[in-house]
Amino acid sequence: MVFKDLTPEEVLNLIEENNENMLMEYLEEQHPADIAELLEKIPDEKRLYIFNSLPPDKAVLVLEELDYDLRFYILNNLPYKYMTHLLKEMSADEITDFLGELPAEFSQKWLDLLEIREREDIRNLLKYEENTAGGLMTLEYVAFPFGYKIRDVLEKLPEMAPDAETIYYIYVTDKEKHLKGVVSLRDLILADPELTLEDVMLTDVKKVDVNMDQEDVARVFEKYGFLGLPVVDKENRLLGIITVDDVMDVLEEEATEDILKLAGTDSRTDIEGISPWYRAYRRLPWLLIALFGEIISGAVISGFSKALEAVVALSFFIPVLMDMGGNVGTQSSAVVVRGIATNRINVRELWENIIREGFIGLILGSICGIIAALIAYLWQGIPALGLVVGISMTLTLTVAAVLGTFVPLTLNKLGKDPAVSSGPFVTTTLDIISLTVYFSSASLFIGYILQS
Amino acid sequence: MVFKDLTPEEVLNLIEENNENMLMEYLEEQHPADIAELLEKIPDEKRLYIFNSLPPDKAVLVLEELDYDLRFYILNNLPYKYMTHLLKEMSADEITDFLGELPAEFSQKWLDLLEIREREDIRNLLKYEENTAGGLMTLEYVAFPFGYKIRDVLEKLPEMAPDAETIYYIYVTDKEKHLKGVVSLRDLILADPELTLEDVMLTDVKKVDVNMDQEDVARVFEKYGFLGLPVVDKENRLLGIITVDDVMDVLEEEATEDILKLAGTDSRTDIEGISPWYRAYRRLPWLLIALFGEIISGAVISGFSKALEAVVALSFFIPVLMDMGGNVGTQSSAVVVRGIATNRINVRELWENIIREGFIGLILGSICGIIAALIAYLWQGIPALGLVVGISMTLTLTVAAVLGTFVPLTLNKLGKDPAVSSGPFVTTTLDIISLTVYFSSASLFIGYILQS
Repeated sequence: MVFKDLTPEEVLNLIEENNENMLMEYLEEQHPADIAELLEKIPDEKRLYIFNSLPPDKAVLVLEELDYDLRFYILNNLPYKYMTHLLKEMSADEITDFLGELPAEFSQKWLDLLEIREREDIRNLLKYEENTAGGLMTLEYVAFPFGYKIRDVLEKLPEMAPDAETIYYIYVTDKEKHLKGVVSLRDLILADPELTLEDVMLTDVKKVDVNMDQEDVARVFEKYGFLGLPVVDKENRLLGIITVDDVMDVLEEEATEDILKLAGTDSRTDIEGISPWYRAYRRLPWLLIALFGEIISGAVISGFSKALEAVVALSFFIPVLMDMGGNVGTQSSAVVVRGIATNRINVRELWENIIREGFIGLILGSICGIIAALIAYLWQGIPALGLVVGISMTLTLTVAAVLGTFVPLTLNKLGKDPAVSSGPFVTTTLDIISLTVYFSSASLFIGYILQS
Repeated sequence: MVFKDLTPEEVLNLIEENNENMLMEYLEEQHPADIAELLEKIPDEKRLYIFNSLPPDKAVLVLEELDYDLRFYILNNLPYKYMTHLLKEMSADEITDFLGELPAEFSQKWLDLLEIREREDIRNLLKYEENTAGGLMTLEYVAFPFGYKIRDVLEKLPEMAPDAETIYYIYVTDKEKHLKGVVSLRDLILADPELTLEDVMLTDVKKVDVNMDQEDVARVFEKYGFLGLPVVDKENRLLGIITVDDVMDVLEEEATEDILKLAGTDSRTDIEGISPWYRAYRRLPWLLIALFGEIISGAVISGFSKALEAVVALSFFIPVLMDMGGNVGTQSSAVVVRGIATNRINVRELWENIIREGFIGLILGSICGIIAALIAYLWQGIPALGLVVGISMTLTLTVAAVLGTFVPLTLNKLGKDPAVSSGPFVTTTLDIISLTVYFSSASLFIGYILQS
């Protein structure tokens, strides 16, 4: 308790001072997640020193909390025998995710270090896509076949507990491992010990298919507030379980992905330690598409250069039209992308959604159109110019809301990620549309504009 | 099990056919969360009919799953006595959140319906800010004073279980309710029943202060993978607990808020059933600010109208500069806002972050600048114009990355929400900057441009 608030610097001082006893005592008191955080904040060579000061069973827990890069660095720099030991002690789902990300040269070599049975578990897990229920699940669950008395289950649990990811749900299966029921530990300790599992189990078990997308799995957890869910195959055979802590990571990951994709970048770009060159590289593709898109916008303007030469003031309103269209389009896309992710929007109602957003766009467009028209008129003293600006603004914002809704909903319907750069794509398309509308109506009214 | 897949339409048919037995049987099998979802999808008058077909104990669970609006509608349309009964049965934290949102005329009246003790619980809970640990917590936890034997705890649990939000953590307190330790149910059933709670409890209890922001609470859950956390006051007195299912809602809420605020709107706009007028109203403020901001952009152009009259082609590159600046700024803001939310960015390193993002902006600006310069040169055949476009692009994207990083980090430092419309604000400011840079350099090189 004395150590509660040591900063990374203070821990490094303990090493400097060769104060090994204090260090060991401090590490013993810390939660593995705190030690992992500490390791991430200190220089490499001290990381190994601290890691080697941990007792092996805690070292495993700390490893499981570490990011991929640091986990690899530490394991790869440990004595061969200790590394093998730690690998064997990690849970099957953690080691699978880890080996799945390793370069092939290492993953095969390290896989060979494990016992045959563990190796098979991991090979089985590696079959499942990373972003599905199969990729999330762990094999370390508690299941009993039919016929067990509650008393016997309670007696057996202590042996199973240390290896299980959770003992808060006890699953009941038949001989072929078909999932037949579930008993929560809560109900188990409340029940008469002389009854059997079948007497108290819930038969209407909520479960997820092994191929279900991880985002959908997260929705099931959210909806029902479960701590864990069983994963089954097409024949309802129990394959593994997913626990709520893994799902929280999924929610975070998916939300981050949505935000970054909407902004025209991707989630690989915000990881600490990735070089700026690589980050720039990941952000470049959508910028290039936008660049060529906006050259088309420029071509639209050049198509109207006669009008522009006659009335240079037309160019003064290019920024406001472009930016407002982009803003409304982005607002609509964000609302829709998030609405899809959180199930607030009924995606089957494509047209209902578009009409609803389009109406909001029309409201916003009318208000902003009137204001912009007044400003244009008062500033340049040309009533017809005000009219052109106002009409273009109203039309642009309405189209912006429609397009900002249509693109993510359609991407979703096609089975694509609705967030994939909806932002930049919508904005660029809108610029082309709004400039065309603006200069077309300006050409139409050019006589009136020149009269003033 | 036969009913497993009834659509809302099929349920409505059961009502049409007066098939009450089937309906009751169906409802009995369904999870409260599923019934809540069903109620949200059917017309008002059928909602009450179905709700009234539920047994009262299930009706309470369904109420707790409903959105605020529907919950209010149903309660307000029930017979007075039944409504009072349901209110009394709801958990204190649910009823507090609900009453907190009710118009004052109802909240006082409905509060008065409750027993004195419940009323005090709720008044106590109402004291805490909605977005803090206190606003999230529930009072229905399991705590024992010192001295209890494990055997006695296990015997007493069944009585406490029905009212408790979770029995997976048992807290140990002294006479003044100071939090002294915690035992997980897992450890409890694994322990020798003759030992006391003090023998097996963890004394280094992870806990949260009652005033901690809910987003920070969620981070603690994520970091440690807990199912529940105790909430304490400044004197370490146990006030309540927070369970992981409430925290999942917080994560979703905060992510949605980030996305919508970045896009210049807010989370009240995507709730089903809210009128388009209100939604437009919530989106309008940032649009108006952007509108006036872009009028300044227009004024910048008008300031250079001499140059523009001489070379109308200058206007062709306004869209590409504006849009690319906006894109890079938005990318940077999104990365930073999300980095702050998920703790991936060290917010104290303001300048390190700005320099790192600025360097990425410089890389992106150089690449896009060279491409844009080539296009401008090849298209218009004016080398100096290519140079002006290229330089402006490089400068704009570098500034965009810097500004997109600076704004959310500074808002965060000032204790504001970093996502608050970083997007529109950054984009509008960038437009003014990029147009100034572009036309200034164009004026500088106007001689060379005209020579071609």
